[in-house]
Amino acid sequence: MNKFSFTIDKSLGNPTFARTGIIHTPHGDIKTPAFIVVGTKATVKALTPEQVKDTGAQAILANAYHLYLQPGHKIVEKAGGLSEFANWDGPTFTDSGGFQVLSLGSGYKKVISMDSDLSTNAPKSSRHAFVDDDGVNFKSVIDGSMHRFTPELSMEIQHSIGADICFAFDELTSLAETYEYQVEALNRTHRWAERSLNHFRKLNKESGRPYQALFGVLQGANHEDLRRQTAKFLGAMSFDGYGIGGAIEKSKLGEIVGWVTEELPVDKPRHLLGISEPDDMFNAVAKGIDTFDCVSPTRVARNGAVYTLDGRINLRKACYKEDFSQLDPDCDCYTCQNYSRAYLHHLLKAGERLAATLLSIHNEAFIIRLVDSMRTSIEDGSFEDYRQKWLSRYYH
Amino acid sequence: MNKFSFTIDKSLGNPTFARTGIIHTPHGDIKTPAFIVVGTKATVKALTPEQVKDTGAQAILANAYHLYLQPGHKIVEKAGGLSEFANWDGPTFTDSGGFQVLSLGSGYKKVISMDSDLSTNAPKSSRHAFVDDDGVNFKSVIDGSMHRFTPELSMEIQHSIGADICFAFDELTSLAETYEYQVEALNRTHRWAERSLNHFRKLNKESGRPYQALFGVLQGANHEDLRRQTAKFLGAMSFDGYGIGGAIEKSKLGEIVGWVTEELPVDKPRHLLGISEPDDMFNAVAKGIDTFDCVSPTRVARNGAVYTLDGRINLRKACYKEDFSQLDPDCDCYTCQNYSRAYLHHLLKAGERLAATLLSIHNEAFIIRLVDSMRTSIEDGSFEDYRQKWLSRYYH
Repeated sequence: MNKFSFTIDKSLGNPTFARTGIIHTPHGDIKTPAFIVVGTKATVKALTPEQVKDTGAQAILANAYHLYLQPGHKIVEKAGGLSEFANWDGPTFTDSGGFQVLSLGSGYKKVISMDSDLSTNAPKSSRHAFVDDDGVNFKSVIDGSMHRFTPELSMEIQHSIGADICFAFDELTSLAETYEYQVEALNRTHRWAERSLNHFRKLNKESGRPYQALFGVLQGANHEDLRRQTAKFLGAMSFDGYGIGGAIEKSKLGEIVGWVTEELPVDKPRHLLGISEPDDMFNAVAKGIDTFDCVSPTRVARNGAVYTLDGRINLRKACYKEDFSQLDPDCDCYTCQNYSRAYLHHLLKAGERLAATLLSIHNEAFIIRLVDSMRTSIEDGSFEDYRQKWLSRYYH
Repeated sequence: MNKFSFTIDKSLGNPTFARTGIIHTPHGDIKTPAFIVVGTKATVKALTPEQVKDTGAQAILANAYHLYLQPGHKIVEKAGGLSEFANWDGPTFTDSGGFQVLSLGSGYKKVISMDSDLSTNAPKSSRHAFVDDDGVNFKSVIDGSMHRFTPELSMEIQHSIGADICFAFDELTSLAETYEYQVEALNRTHRWAERSLNHFRKLNKESGRPYQALFGVLQGANHEDLRRQTAKFLGAMSFDGYGIGGAIEKSKLGEIVGWVTEELPVDKPRHLLGISEPDDMFNAVAKGIDTFDCVSPTRVARNGAVYTLDGRINLRKACYKEDFSQLDPDCDCYTCQNYSRAYLHHLLKAGERLAATLLSIHNEAFIIRLVDSMRTSIEDGSFEDYRQKWLSRYYH
């Protein structure tokens, strides 16, 4: 299978509701709903590709911004692309760098508070990212050097990296921006979407390489009119799928996703960017989301936090020092099958690197299995039952 | 095979010369000469046990001092012993903690300069370890708390940890000590050896657990008379094997090992503690050493250094940024078969944890294969030829 395509297997009731499908890519298929594992710098932190595969991961997502800065996208291209470079033979995604340019560029890490430097209240000198109609100037997170991203450069970077699924370059806004600024930014994102699509198709065609899919990115913060407007506008373009990004209040997540999926073409895949909290994923799948990605499973693992069906626990706590039971009795991952909580607690307290590896394996396997089981429950018609039961146990 | 034993397969010329054999332990056999991989805190740094096995490792060596401090040897015992705790099903060693009590206790990390705090020149207040005839008081490397090791406690710790091969508690000295002090320390080590052996046999017998072997430890610094004397003294005792420890000038290593192996009983295995430099290992095997251990392969890996047949290189250097060749063209380890130098360079520069894992896999595989190939060359009678060729290429 050499061309990108998406087939829907089962859809519950209305087309915008929960559905199962398959994304076909030149590097293999992704059964949806699916959780895509993040490998920001062409490596899933602390895991070999074989360990990533063993968690059940179908695809990985790397980051255009980080790989542009280090080692440079041309290095990845010379290596034969992301798959070859990182020894990952499955499907790959890259995000556009739009998020990182503005979030890291501004020195913020949380979407919800990403705006203050960008709003007119912040003095110009304290900003690390500057948006104009043509692109964004930003400071490197590595050495503070100045760089500029345009839609065309983001496409060139992503084309060089060679992932199966790429994202258009967009402007990230936050909940603190004025409505007027949200409108201005959204219109700019629309123009950048057109530039991204034209340039990316041209690059892919000229290179003669396997087809790379491009997803449009939907912004619009918490505003229903803007979210619907951008879904209609970008939905009418020939993107291969859509990413939903930007600042979203947790309590409104299902609602916002619903506005967007009601307007988007039914037959294209929808990716919710940067989300892995179980209740959020259930809400999003219920509204027709097909794929997710998030750094959280490995990030929290490095701090000792692990998911269990009875909620999140932190293995650094003293109560696990002599707990020789299996990490998660319901889990068949490598870590749960071979190590006790006491051993994992010891590795964490001793600062041993194996802790990050073993806990990341479990957390990725847990989140992947959760989304996989949503697919199963959609197939057999038990999704709503499953959701209620699963969430009431996890958030007891 | 439930009891410890050692069989010699082939010996070159004189009994003290290079030889091949098999150490039989309750957890499996070790074909010698062999390199034993170090897993200080019940984990080989950055590697899963399966990755360790894949490097060709036959056994791992953990540390009584570190496991006593963290998580506590009683925790390891409750887990079912080191093998069960760390998910390693092969043979295991623990060293006695004598080295760490004095080296870490004194704040030094290098054998050769280990003495100054212990000599009479250092003010008492700056010392972190104090030897008396009954044992050693020392400060914990973790929190500075005071602890005391005696031969009996070291044996209790090692018995709890449950390794197949343990070491008697000894006093480490350095090259800077006076001859008089070396004599005094060696006599103390002899008394501690008797106490270690008696207490360990009693513990092992009373517990009814699988037989744990105990190796005597030979000190004596660079003094031929002391090295021969201790080899004779401890060699006459019922130890299951012998460890050669202490400060050894590199240029004298083969000579010192030769003094000792000439005096030791032929039919017991000999372990050279803390050595993995290729020329040192060739020199030691030539004089009848059967096993080695050392932290270097993983320690230097974490800094970017890797062994190749043409010498050691550091992958952090800029010249590897676009080097898409195999790390070591002569190596069939997982890392060399799947990753380019450019990718490994990228992981190092990006501070990614996978770098330590991949480089540690290669370095362990390299050193293990080197010692394994010494065994093959002894078997087919080509040891001296092989030694000359190998060393002239590596140290070109």
